Amino acid sequence: MDELMQALAGAAVEVEAMLDRVLTAESEPESRLINAMRYAALDGGKRLRPFLLLQSAGLFGVARVPAVRTAAAVELVHCYSLVHDDLPAMDDDELRRGKPTVHRAFDEATAILAGDALLTLAFEVLAHPDTHSNPEVRADLVGGLARAAGAHGMVGGQMIDLSAEGRDMDIGEITRLQRLKTGALIAFACESGAVLGRTAEPSREALRGYAHDLGLAFQIADDLLDVEGSAEEAGKAVGKDAVRGKATFVSILGPERAREQAHMLARQAISHLANFGEKATLLRQAARYVVDRRS
Amino acid sequence: MDELMQALAGAAVEVEAMLDRVLTAESEPESRLINAMRYAALDGGKRLRPFLLLQSAGLFGVARVPAVRTAAAVELVHCYSLVHDDLPAMDDDELRRGKPTVHRAFDEATAILAGDALLTLAFEVLAHPDTHSNPEVRADLVGGLARAAGAHGMVGGQMIDLSAEGRDMDIGEITRLQRLKTGALIAFACESGAVLGRTAEPSREALRGYAHDLGLAFQIADDLLDVEGSAEEAGKAVGKDAVRGKATFVSILGPERAREQAHMLARQAISHLANFGEKATLLRQAARYVVDRRS
Repeated sequence: MDELMQALAGAAVEVEAMLDRVLTAESEPESRLINAMRYAALDGGKRLRPFLLLQSAGLFGVARVPAVRTAAAVELVHCYSLVHDDLPAMDDDELRRGKPTVHRAFDEATAILAGDALLTLAFEVLAHPDTHSNPEVRADLVGGLARAAGAHGMVGGQMIDLSAEGRDMDIGEITRLQRLKTGALIAFACESGAVLGRTAEPSREALRGYAHDLGLAFQIADDLLDVEGSAEEAGKAVGKDAVRGKATFVSILGPERAREQAHMLARQAISHLANFGEKATLLRQAARYVVDRRS
Repeated sequence: MDELMQALAGAAVEVEAMLDRVLTAESEPESRLINAMRYAALDGGKRLRPFLLLQSAGLFGVARVPAVRTAAAVELVHCYSLVHDDLPAMDDDELRRGKPTVHRAFDEATAILAGDALLTLAFEVLAHPDTHSNPEVRADLVGGLARAAGAHGMVGGQMIDLSAEGRDMDIGEITRLQRLKTGALIAFACESGAVLGRTAEPSREALRGYAHDLGLAFQIADDLLDVEGSAEEAGKAVGKDAVRGKATFVSILGPERAREQAHMLARQAISHLANFGEKATLLRQAARYVVDRRS
């Protein structure tokens, strides 16, 4: 796993540098907004989505700048979603990545606006000529990210999640919820390499399959960490799902079967990568990692 | 002005139909989200930005579908900004376009998510091949809208506006605030016709100049309505700026000089259109209209 940890850390460094570059600080009155955006986006998280994107780009020989810019765009969307999810009207969280959430460190209005601006910046980054010399690729990326992040993707999943508190859900409903809430953006990250590489449909299909299984495995592991992990390791509050009476994979299947399911999904994710040979080694390791991680 | 009123109403009908089409209702659990998005975007407002966009597209013989889709995208961004601006943590408004605001009609979490999804949908609409056959134009539109709406545009202006409550500002600061908060999106609407028509820089420059003056004139008229208008006519609460101790063009210049300034800006806006001949007649009328309107 050392190679994987190095690649994860490397992806984090690269995307961090790009985020630092696109989030340019200014001395204008709106600098409070930029500061909140930087607080939300820099120096945090595993950067799993950027890692997946860079690995997927590596399968098709995509140049570094396009891949890193697209990875930064995905991470901007991920960070915006965390800022808004943490708001008092939503999950009302005080801690994120071991630091006060944006609305605690700044204020609620600033957190709403910083989230809005991070989301907007993601599309600005993708549309810029530096992201790809072919404008068709840029437009494809914008469309794909918007679909993954919007009402029929991540935000739709968040809406279902909020309406699900205190209500019974079956495995089918939870699976659909998570496919939208976390799966769609992970799938976009995995498919983007093929989009950037202008690759034909079979490869995209395989990466989509990998991403869907990986996303669900990741979510089940998250639910397990919420039950079994410590806040210190997780860098955020744990045990919240039970307090809120929220149905999760773990509350329905129990921890043992949930863990089995996560491992099964990881194996299934790996099976989609058969045609990519050695180039997909780290993506295979990542599938095992997401179910074994401690935070 | 009859011709202008007809053109405004016509633009409203066309953009309404397009918004209705892109905001497809579903019977899924997330239908609450779609309903909130439709509530925020349909059946409301003067649709000034779509009108400006369609007129600007008309100057360059742009086909109808590209123009209306781009107008819908701009209106989605405008509507999202109203939803978020009205939130309790922001302006805390109860009334918008004569109806309860989204967070009053639904709830706060739904309003945050609906705004997020409207913003995201705007970029999805622009990136779609139906918006223009040339992907370079689509990517240009995405980049332009993102810059107009983001941290160095509309959201940045909103941040300054929030930090300005109870603080003295001079005319220069207020002008910059409004240029970002309302001017940037209006400028994008006016310039989009030239982008869609693939027109050279002088035309874009002229439209940008027109839009900047029009945007400021519009804002001064808005400030005057807040002082002198009735809630019934405006469809929203009035007199708020004074209550919040917010510096406006009117609080600094006084109503008389503010009105003069608005008329001067309208004339200046019109002067930018000299090279467009009769095709720009309605844009000229619009400049007079924004300062004379009663709501």
